[in-house]
This record gives sequence, structure tokens and C-alpha cells, in this order.
Amino acid sequence: MEGVDHLAHERNKSEFDVDAMKIVWAGSPHAFDVSDRISKLVASDPGFRKDNRSMLSRKELFKNTLRKAAYAWKTIVDLHLSEEEAAKLRFYVDEPAFTDVHWGMFIPAIKGQGTEEQQQKWLPLAYKMQIIGTYAQTELGHGSNVQGLETTATFDPQTDEFIIHSPTLTSSKWWPGGLGKVATHAIAYARLIVGGREHGVTGFIVQLRSLEDHSPLPGITVGDIGMKFGNGAYNAMDNGVLRFDHVRIPRNQMLMRCAQYTCLGMPSDAKLILEPCILIRVSQVTCEGKYKQSDVPRQLVYGAMLYVRQTIVADASSALSRAVIDYKTQQSRLFPLLASAYAFRFIGEWLKWLYADVTQRLQTNDFSTLPEAHACTAGLKSLTTTATAVRGPYGIRWKKKRLGRRSLSSSEQIVSPSSSSRWSPLEEESLPVEDKSLEERLNGIEECRKLCGGHGYLCSSGLPELFAVYVPACTYEGDNTVLLLQVARFLMKTVSQLGSSKKPVGTIAYMTRVEHLMQCRCGVQRAEDWLKPSALLEAFEARAARMSVACAQNLSNFDNPEEGFAELSADLVEAAVAHCQLLVVSKFIEKLQQEIPGKGAKQQLEVLCNIYALFLLHKHQGDFLSTGCITSKHAALANDELRSLYSQVRPNAIALVDAFNYTDHYLGSILGCYDGNVYPKLYEAAWKDPLNESVVPDGYHQYIRPLLKQEIRTARL
Amino acid sequence: MEGVDHLAHERNKSEFDVDAMKIVWAGSPHAFDVSDRISKLVASDPGFRKDNRSMLSRKELFKNTLRKAAYAWKTIVDLHLSEEEAAKLRFYVDEPAFTDVHWGMFIPAIKGQGTEEQQQKWLPLAYKMQIIGTYAQTELGHGSNVQGLETTATFDPQTDEFIIHSPTLTSSKWWPGGLGKVATHAIAYARLIVGGREHGVTGFIVQLRSLEDHSPLPGITVGDIGMKFGNGAYNAMDNGVLRFDHVRIPRNQMLMRCAQYTCLGMPSDAKLILEPCILIRVSQVTCEGKYKQSDVPRQLVYGAMLYVRQTIVADASSALSRAVIDYKTQQSRLFPLLASAYAFRFIGEWLKWLYADVTQRLQTNDFSTLPEAHACTAGLKSLTTTATAVRGPYGIRWKKKRLGRRSLSSSEQIVSPSSSSRWSPLEEESLPVEDKSLEERLNGIEECRKLCGGHGYLCSSGLPELFAVYVPACTYEGDNTVLLLQVARFLMKTVSQLGSSKKPVGTIAYMTRVEHLMQCRCGVQRAEDWLKPSALLEAFEARAARMSVACAQNLSNFDNPEEGFAELSADLVEAAVAHCQLLVVSKFIEKLQQEIPGKGAKQQLEVLCNIYALFLLHKHQGDFLSTGCITSKHAALANDELRSLYSQVRPNAIALVDAFNYTDHYLGSILGCYDGNVYPKLYEAAWKDPLNESVVPDGYHQYIRPLLKQEIRTARL
Ligand SMILES: Cc1cc2nc3c(=O)[nH]c(=O)nc-3n(C[C@H](O)[C@H](O)[C@H](O)COP(=O)(O)OP(=O)(O)OC[C@H]3O[C@@H](n4cnc5c(N)ncnc54)[C@H](O)[C@@H]3O)c2cc1C
Ligand SMILES: Cc1cc2nc3c(=O)[nH]c(=O)nc-3n(C[C@H](O)[C@H](O)[C@H](O)COP(=O)(O)OP(=O)(O)OC[C@H]3O[C@@H](n4cnc5c(N)ncnc54)[C@H](O)[C@@H]3O)c2cc1C
Ligand SMILES: [Ca+2]
Repeated sequence: MEGVDHLAHERNKSEFDVDAMKIVWAGSPHAFDVSDRISKLVASDPGFRKDNRSMLSRKELFKNTLRKAAYAWKTIVDLHLSEEEAAKLRFYVDEPAFTDVHWGMFIPAIKGQGTEEQQQKWLPLAYKMQIIGTYAQTELGHGSNVQGLETTATFDPQTDEFIIHSPTLTSSKWWPGGLGKVATHAIAYARLIVGGREHGVTGFIVQLRSLEDHSPLPGITVGDIGMKFGNGAYNAMDNGVLRFDHVRIPRNQMLMRCAQYTCLGMPSDAKLILEPCILIRVSQVTCEGKYKQSDVPRQLVYGAMLYVRQTIVADASSALSRAVIDYKTQQSRLFPLLASAYAFRFIGEWLKWLYADVTQRLQTNDFSTLPEAHACTAGLKSLTTTATAVRGPYGIRWKKKRLGRRSLSSSEQIVSPSSSSRWSPLEEESLPVEDKSLEERLNGIEECRKLCGGHGYLCSSGLPELFAVYVPACTYEGDNTVLLLQVARFLMKTVSQLGSSKKPVGTIAYMTRVEHLMQCRCGVQRAEDWLKPSALLEAFEARAARMSVACAQNLSNFDNPEEGFAELSADLVEAAVAHCQLLVVSKFIEKLQQEIPGKGAKQQLEVLCNIYALFLLHKHQGDFLSTGCITSKHAALANDELRSLYSQVRPNAIALVDAFNYTDHYLGSILGCYDGNVYPKLYEAAWKDPLNESVVPDGYHQYIRPLLKQEIRTARL
Repeated sequence: MEGVDHLAHERNKSEFDVDAMKIVWAGSPHAFDVSDRISKLVASDPGFRKDNRSMLSRKELFKNTLRKAAYAWKTIVDLHLSEEEAAKLRFYVDEPAFTDVHWGMFIPAIKGQGTEEQQQKWLPLAYKMQIIGTYAQTELGHGSNVQGLETTATFDPQTDEFIIHSPTLTSSKWWPGGLGKVATHAIAYARLIVGGREHGVTGFIVQLRSLEDHSPLPGITVGDIGMKFGNGAYNAMDNGVLRFDHVRIPRNQMLMRCAQYTCLGMPSDAKLILEPCILIRVSQVTCEGKYKQSDVPRQLVYGAMLYVRQTIVADASSALSRAVIDYKTQQSRLFPLLASAYAFRFIGEWLKWLYADVTQRLQTNDFSTLPEAHACTAGLKSLTTTATAVRGPYGIRWKKKRLGRRSLSSSEQIVSPSSSSRWSPLEEESLPVEDKSLEERLNGIEECRKLCGGHGYLCSSGLPELFAVYVPACTYEGDNTVLLLQVARFLMKTVSQLGSSKKPVGTIAYMTRVEHLMQCRCGVQRAEDWLKPSALLEAFEARAARMSVACAQNLSNFDNPEEGFAELSADLVEAAVAHCQLLVVSKFIEKLQQEIPGKGAKQQLEVLCNIYALFLLHKHQGDFLSTGCITSKHAALANDELRSLYSQVRPNAIALVDAFNYTDHYLGSILGCYDGNVYPKLYEAAWKDPLNESVVPDGYHQYIRPLLKQEIRTARL
């Protein structure tokens, strides 16, 4: 059957130019070319095989990951790959490894927080991998709560050193990737203590292991924190535990770019002025950023891809049944996922632009768009997980100099260290920006698994590992609820300033029309009217505005605003979601106002955009109805239109996932394989399980035979 | 710290009698006593240790499971445990194993489908475990679609035998638990062919392996289907693949209780009359029923238990932070879960009654309540997973004799073989009936994991395995959408008969008041009014009735009703959900009309009942608003009341989960441990990972050192 495309009949149905769509999806012909070339290179090299991952024991898995990381590096060196290509290669190798933290967190932290001098010393070593770094912030007892970190770094003026110490069990560093078994160095975060006074949490470069024999240095206790969720998945990574017992490091290993100290090193009773920058959103330092970054696109599209291919295949062998994808109930579960994939692809593109814009402004000390930009990224992190533009907490952060130690103004508070999201720069690892709702993505993977029936529960389907790798993204990027509360704070501030001279700009500009939005009426008469971008936009804007205003009104009933904020937090989160969904819908609509080459490509995207918006409208109709933005009549018309859109997308479903252009190697799923030849491959894969090495299983004589032979009473168990 | 209760201060806050609540939860003092005794017996026996499960390789894990299964049997035999106690023991041992299918599917299938004679021959062998059975229905290409099964059983009149054969790859049996490596016998389902004519899918007892040396018999190819989702979890089970190559079995190994054949064995051209019973809901035979059955209660309460305990502990070590559970956003995620646990506990009790009632009626040929009862169980399976009363497809089914081969009447169709749920009897394994929404339970586990931050991703938290074990329940019990569509069919039928003399009875009786419900107005004026059971009930009844009626009206616009049903299926599913939620709410309210002993217990349950109902009302406010059952004002009042209920339940949260009375062994979660001493235990567990056996990891010399020493070009990788 090799070479036969079992899905050819489906592919022939499609009504648009798939190759053109591939380029739309990739972002540019160049981006497509690099991705296509490197993904095929990885897929064709048996050194990067990954189909056996779930069968390996922890130790085998880990050792194999070490091998792959070395092999990837060798390939990059041997083939003289460019930085762009190297990043893609790491992406397509697709295995969580210590290198993710080294490239994605350790190096960016030095670049972002190190002085010129520190960079010159450490970066070349790190670039050549003469040292391997980890990023050690989280402690056993302190994750989101960065202010609570307990590790101390006490300055000893006698020796001009810092003494790094773990005073309690809960101060043990816990989770850093690559720490357990590999990293030779760490950026460790600790409370800086100089002259008996505390100066907040700061980063320090600490050597952990001998560069000669890899043994931990004196005072360092380090190990792996144990098995994590799933088969393969993050068990390939040595997330670690680390304790310091009065470990001394030279003064110049404190990351100093942000600390303009005047008298560090003077007698401890001297007046000390430390002016650390405000590291915007330093707080909840996420982790494995690099890996996550690379993995997001797969998770994004994977569900849809596999889902479509498998549901078309399902039961194809039986004359009795039709393809599962033809059931309306299945379509109403699948097609919104597919539409979200595209929606988030485009919001990601826009975030890339936003990042560049804000960075440029910051360089000229223009902080005006910062709060709005922060609200966008925090909200979209929560609604969507961003891959590159907003890719994690490490990396060069947007900084804002803080003079003196005055307390933060409320506008700064939005971007204060206690907030738990952060931007990161477009680093050398610049990848296609693709995003997808966190919740939706997880639900999407689960949905996908359910759609595939029992087969989705087999590791050979690829879904279990996908899920396990994806799951922690909710955690290590900062809790969504916390992020949404930040967006809500921004919204409340915007509402409170509505009368004032401060005009809402950018994505919140719709609030300038709040009076209209508070009382406009939906003009939809027939189902097709919902296809008008203006009708959709107004409904989403009115909903968002009305929910924000309602929250602001309820807040004003509280004497203590903070108490009110806490009490109403669940409602505030809902208002924030409404705002973020508007953002995604509006950027999708904007994208479609541009030219999109390729026969039929634009039409397909229009269908998807409408599905995305109307699906949200249906799902959240409680919001739209309770705020009076639409009536139940309008809701029913939207639902009718949605059904007709599902029929329109149906013949193009397979081509729309083909446009993601991922190799079978990268997907790592038998169910999602390109040619749809699912059953023979599943059957073949089964026999490779270690249990099938012998026909009669190990344990038969001790534990099965005594049952059958009624000798259990005397059996030794 | 051993013996110190770190949560004592929380426990002291509670306002009700926990011991009394434990008995409410267990169902009776006797049930509590047995559970308590047996769970402690299992927990204290090192032979049942399970904390190392996630670290074992597939082969080690499997062998260890074989040992435990034998050890459990030995314990049952040695201690002369009663059937009730033995069932509890298997439950608390809590490891998926071949014994689940043997006791939970193989034996019940023989009891349900075998003749007296067959039962006398096979049951004693099975009861003593002289043979070990599996239940082989699903095929590689056919799951839900039972009519599509391809395996054939051709009658050979010459030898008076059946020839069991797998004609295609997709006809390979696939998934049966215990099949891969252990089972000596199977109930295999195949298309019965006699005299060249097909007679539908029937079960056959087939020996698979030699009872002497365990090798597969001639014509049998059997193996394991490979790794499944998660660490430990279902990898302890040898779900298998099986192919038959013209395997001959005696005629009397066809399960005959339902086949009143007159001339099987006569020349093949003779007139043949087969009158198999209609096996109600035979179709989608689930699997591992026994295991699932036993596992449901854990999944049910586990999330809430762990969630509460952990969120109270979280960051307790840091003076800066307060218990995470005090955040309103967390409460709005947690307390509805806790309330659902209790809601489903009580609906489960009611289902037990329903089962008994219908069984009794069937014995007197009273089929009147059957369609309604079916709709209840199908719907509640989907909304909730039932543990005992509706525990799987195997077991003795409610049968209805079918005379002749006439096509099914439409009322039968609801319970036809193509439907995918089924009742099962209260077998010897009668366990507490506990249920919980499938979706909600999964979401609950995920929610719980998120609430625990990073730690929930560690296997030592117990959450990963819980999730993995739980995940397939969505699949192997029959797809929820399909089940809800059956409920919808029943609802549409009810609506269509509203004018007629056929009066809706039982749970659908509210439809007799449809005229009132179509136009009643919500009388809630103040937030507290929502605490009136009558107000809640009317709102839920009106919503359910109006959604059903709206669907019926939309359906009537279609010329072809089946086409309409397919087209509107997504709306129909929503109407079915509304009906099922009403059912759960109303049974919770009914429960509270009974006497509930124990200081404060009833008050707590009232708070939980109101949380459950108002949470649903908030979550589905789109339904309530669009049907005009409530106004946005009412919705806002409900929301206010919900917030106040959260504050009321807060001090009792820990005691409400303590009432589940599970041992730390059974929970298998460091985060959920009774004494709350989380951090030292997490720390200690980490060091047990195999990777920590050596300080310098295996692979250092080959794969890490060449990087650090810049020797990658010459490294052998
Ligand atoms: C796979 C993985 C890899 C990681 N890699 C690294 C790494 O390389 N380096 C590193 O330093 N760390 C790493 N981490 C740690 C990660 O950064 C933390 O898990 C994360 O910061 C969350 O902290 P926590 O786990 O302590 O959860 P917590 O902060 O304790 O959160 C627990 C729950 O409390 C709630 N909560 C907390 N604060 C609030 C609030 N103010 N309001 C309302 N609710 C709140 C949240 O909703 C959350 O659900 C990793 C974690 C994982 C899972
Ligand atoms: C852990 C585990 C243990 C198992 N143990 C056993 C066992 O012991 N013995 C045994 O015989 N089997 C066993 N099974 C198999 C199990 O019974 C099947 O997986 C189940 O019947 C579903 O069938 P399927 O996997 O082929 O999914 P399918 O039936 O192919 O379903 C795939 C998807 O198609 C959709 N679909 C199917 N039909 C329709 C329809 N009419 N309308 C709308 N949508 C539809 C469903 O939504 C589903 O999501 C086990 C499975 C698992 C996961
Ligand atoms: Ca989920």
C-alpha cells in the first residue's frame, strides 16, 4: 500500500489552492521554504527518530535525549546551518531537552540582565556550549509568588563575594529544566542582602558542576525531581531540585545590567543605593520557554490536522458507516477548532508587529502604549498561547527604569513584578508565530482524542504525548486567571478615565464609542446578515464594552476598591475574556481586508473567520443576551448561519489542514498520517511493544499459573 | 513531623458533624463500615503498595500487576472475605488489571447470555479462576459501530462446529483488556452465519491459550496493542489484539440464552428460525467495566479532595501569601466541583432505585417505564458516569423478547442494539453508587492540576495517573454525543405526544405542565429568593421544556424528519443536556427533603445543592435567557447569591472532602495527603527517581562531555 494516498478523494474535493495557503500559513515564501526544507531534513534522518519515545524507561529516554541533543548540535555544526535554520532544526527535532532552557532561558537572561562585560565573558562560552545553563527561579514553596522566594544572596564585603544559601526546605529550587543532571551553570534568583538590608530578588550566575568530571561543586546538592505527566513528554527533561549550602561566588556574577549600584563593596554599614530596573513581569518566570515556543505550532494545528484526517478515515472500511466527519455534531466540535487555528495564526502575526512597535517606542522612552500592549499580551497569553512574539518570561524584557525606591504608581502596577506574564524579544530563534487558546487547545486535544475513539488513547496515535507536553503550558506561563485579572484591571482603569482627556488607544480604542456601544441595537435581520464584518464587530464590541461598564458600576458600590475587585473577580475575568475575544475576531477580520493570493484561499479564510466569530457568539450567548447586545432571535439566526458555514468548510477540511505542511515525523501520529493508511500502521506498531517480545509473558509461572492451577494458597507472591 | 496534622486549624473551622456526613456519603453505616475496614486493610499491606507505579517500565509494571492480582486473590481466599468485601478489596487495590475484565465483563456476559447449561459449565471455572476470560467485541475498524463487526462464525453442520475467522485486517479484535497476555478464554463477538445466511452479531466462548503452557492455540494470533496514555495507568493492563484463522469451536459454545433456535445443526439449506432476544444496548460494548466501576468514586471525589487540601496548603510557608483557596476566582472554580461531587452522589443513589424498579417491572412484562428509564440512564451516563447501577454494557442486560424478525418499532428503537448505552445489574460487586459528570470530572482533574500549579504535573501528585486512567471513560462508555442524541430522540417523541392520551411519566412528568412552563415568569426579586427550591426547579423545568419544544418546532420545518434530526443535532444535544441537568438538580432537592442526621450536615448539603444549581444557571445563562425563562436581572441576582454561597462553604471545605473518607494509599497523591504535610514529602519522593541513582548521569561521557569539550565533530553519536 506504500505510496497510495487513501485520502486522495478528499483532497480532490477542495476548492482552493493549497500551495498558496501553505505560504499564507507560513507567513512568507521564505519562511515556508526554510520550514519545508529543515522539517524534511529532520524527518529523513534516522538519528532523529522519535516514534519509540513512549516505550523507553525514564533512564533510557533521558539518555536518548542526551544523544539527540548532541546529534542536533553536530548536525548544525556540520551543515553550517544559519541561525534561522538551526532554530528550525531544534524546533522540528521536537523533544523537550536541557538545550531548550540553555538557548531559550539561560542565554536570553544573560543578554537581558547582564552588563556588557558579563555578556562578553559568558555568552561566547554559552554559544559554543562550553558551559550549559539553566534558569533557576521557582522554589519548592514559591512559584507565582516571586516575592516570596527564600534563597538568599548575602554580600560579604570582606571577600567581595556573595554567599548563596538555601535557608529552608521550601527554598529549594524546584523545576528548572536541565538542572537535575546536565547544567553546569545556573542563573539563580535570590534575595539580595547587602549590609543586613534586603534589596529584592536578583539573578546570579552560579557554577553548579565541575567542568572536568561533572560532579556537583561543594555546597551544591542537585538532583532530578522525578517523573512527570505522560509517556515520553517532559520526562526527557531533567527538571531539577537544587540546594545551596553557603556557596560563594564572585561579586561580578550578580547580573548587574539592571542594578546601578554605587557602593556595593563598601563597608556594610555604608549607605547603599540600589536602583534596580523594574524588570517588567519578571515574576513568574516560566520555563522551558524554548521548548514550548517550538511546540506551540504543533499543538496548535495538530489537533485539527489529526482530527480531520482521522475522522475522514474512521470506519472507512465499513460499508455500513459514513465518515464520522459528516455528522453535524462532529462538525460543530471540529470546525471551530480548525477556525481557531487560523484565527490564532493571524493574531500571532499581529502580536509580532505589536512587539516590534512597542520595543521601538520604548527605545525612545515612549511608554504611552505600554499598558495597552501589556493588556493585549497578558490577555492573549491567557486566551491564546503565543509562540514567538510573546514567548516566555526569559529573554530580553521590556524594561523601564525605576528611579529611587518610591512605590509603584497604579499604571506601573499593571506591569509590575507581581504580574505574571511578560514579553520576550524576537530572538535568534525566530519562528513562525502561531497561537491558540490554551484552554481551547487542551480541550482541542482532548476533543480530538475523543473523536478518534479508543485509538486516540494509544501512544501510537501521538495524542497522549501531545497532551502531556502541552498540559503544563497553563502553569508555566502564568496562571490564566491571574493574567485575565490584569487585563480586567486595565479595562477598569480605561472605563474610569472615559470622561477624561486620556483617550483609549489601540485595541481599546473602541471604548471611545462607548456611548454608542451601550445602546446600539443589532441590525441582523436574516442569517446571512451575520456574515457582515460590521455586524460581527459591533456585537463583539458592544458585549465587551457593556461587560466592562457593568463591572465598573458594580465595583463602585464597594467602599474599598481592592475588596470589590477581589469579590467581583469572577465577573471581571469574564469581562476580560470578552475583550480578548473581540481582539482576536477583529484582527482576523483585519487580515481579510488585506490581499490574500491564491485561488480561493481568501474565501476559505472568510468562512473560517465567520465560523470562529459565530461559534464564540453561540458559546457565549449568555453574555450577548444578558447585556442586550443581541436578542434570542439574533442568536438563533447566528446558529442557522453557523450550520451553513459548517457545510461550506466540509469539502475543504482536509486541504485546510494539509496547508499546515507538517511532516509525518513531526506529527508523530499514526492517526494523523498524511496518506490516511491508518489501520495497517496501527496494527504494525502494536507488535513493537516490549510486552510482545515473548508470547508467554514474564510472570506467568509465578503469578498466572498458580491461579489457573488452584495453587494460590501456597504461591510465593 | 510525623503525626502532626498541618490542616488541623482548617478542620477546626468546620460547622458540621463530619462523621455523620461520612455515613451520608457512604450510603449507610454498614457500607461505611465495610469501606473503612477494607480500605485500611489494603492501605496497611505493603503488598498493595502503588506509589512506585509511574517509575516502572512497561514490562516491570505489567509483571507487578500480575503479582498484585494474584496477591489480592490470595488475600481474599486467606481471609475468607465475603463477596461484598472482596469487591471492596479489588476496588481499593486500585490498579487496572486483567481481573477487572474477568470479573466485570467475562463472567457477567456468561451469566447474562449463557443458557443454564452453559452457566453450569463455565461459571464455576471462572469463579475459581481456573480459566481467565476476556470480552472481545471491538475490532480494529469497528467500535461504536457494532453492526459493522467483521469477524465471522460460520456454522459447519458436518462437524456441528462454528468456524471463527478474521477475514480482514480491520476485523482483528482490538482493545479487549486482559487479552494480550493473560486470558485463556474470550467471549468473542462475531457475525453468525448459518446455511449461508447471516443472523447478526452473537457471542461465542472461545479458548485462546493452552491451560498447560499458556501458549496460544492453533489458529490464534494474540498480542498486546502497546502503550497507552499516561504513566502507570492502563499500561498495567494488557489490552490486546486477536486474530482467528478458521478456529473451530463446538456448537454449544455459542451463547444461547438469547437464541431460541429450532434447527441449528440441521442441513444448511433447511429453514432456519432464529429468534435472538433483543439485547438491549448490546452495541457499543464497553470494557474494563469493572475497573471503571471501581475507579469512578475516586475520580469523583479525588479532584475536590486534593484540590481543597492542596489549595489550603499552598504557599502556607510564606508569610506573604494567603491560602490560594481564599481567592474568589479559585472558589468559583473549586466549589462547583465540590458541589457536583455531592450532586452526583445522590443522583447515583436514585439511579440504583430506578434500576431496581425497572428490573422488577420487566420481570412482570411491564415495559411502560423503559423508554423513560433508558433516557435517564443514557443522559446521565453522558452527564455523569455511573458506577454501579449503570455500570457498563456487560453483565445481565434487560432483555425484551423479540418475536420474529420484524423491524423495530420506534419505541424499541430507543433501546435498540444500535444505541450505545446500557444498563447492567447490581452484581455481586455492589459498590457505593457514585457518579460525576464525565466532562466535569475531566475538567475537574485538569482544573485541580492547574490549581496545584507545577506540582500537579509531577507524578507524585497522583494527578497524571488519575487523569490518564480517567480519560478513556469518555470513549469506552459510548460517546456522549451519541447518548445525548438518544435522549433528544426521547424528548422529541414526548413533545410530539403531548396532546395525546400518552402522559409523560417519571422524570419527564414535568412536561405535563408544558403550557404553564412555556409562559411562566421567574418570580425572583432578591438574591435570596434563588434559595427557594421551587424557584430553582421552575427555572430548570421551564428551560428544559422550552428548549425541547423549540427543537420540535424547528424539526417540523423539515420534510424528512431524520434529515432534520441530523441537521439540528447540535441543538438537540443542548436540549438533552438541559433535561439531564434538571434531573440532577431535582434529585438533589428531593434528597434534601428527606431526613439527614448529623449536626449541620443537612445545612451544608443545602448550600452545596444551591451552589450546584446556581452555578449551572450561570454557566448556561444563554439557555435561560434566550428562552426567556429568566431576565438578565434574575441572572445577576443568581450570581450575587452564588458569591455569598461560596463564602458559606469556605470554612467547611476541608471537612466536606474529609467526608469522602479515602485513605492516603487510595488517593495516591502527595498533594492530597490527609495531614497536609506536602513539601517534605514531595522533596523526599523526588530522590527516588531512577535518574537519581547516580550523580553523574549515564550518557555524560558520550553525549555531554563532547559538547563541553568542543569535541562534537568527532563524537560518535
Ligand atoms: C514543566 C515545567 C517546567 C518548568 N521549568 C522551570 C524552569 O526552567 N525554571 C523555573 O524557575 N521554573 C520552572 N517551572 C516552574 C514554573 O515556573 C512554576 O510552576 C510556575 O511559576 C507556577 O508556580 P507554582 O507551580 O508554584 O504554582 P503557584 O504559583 O503555587 O500556583 C498554584 C495555583 O494558585 C493560584 N494562584 C497563585 N497566585 C494567585 C493569585 N495571586 N491570585 C489567584 N490565584 C493565584 C494559581 O491559579 C495556580 O493555579 C517549571 C514548571 C513546569 C510545570
Ligand atoms: C482503555 C480501553 C479499554 C477497552 N477495553 C475493551 C474491552 O475489554 N473489550 C472490548 O471489546 N472493547 C474494549 N475497548 C474498546 C471500546 O469499547 C471502544 O473504543 C469503543 O466502543 C469506541 O469505539 P471506537 O474506539 O472504535 O470509536 P468509534 O466508534 O470509531 O468512534 C470514534 C468517534 O466517532 C464518533 N461517532 C461514532 N459513531 C457516531 C455516530 N453514529 N454519530 C456521531 N458520531 C459518531 C464518536 O463521537 C467517536 O468520538 C476498550 C477501549 C479503551 C480505550
Ligand atoms: Ca480541560
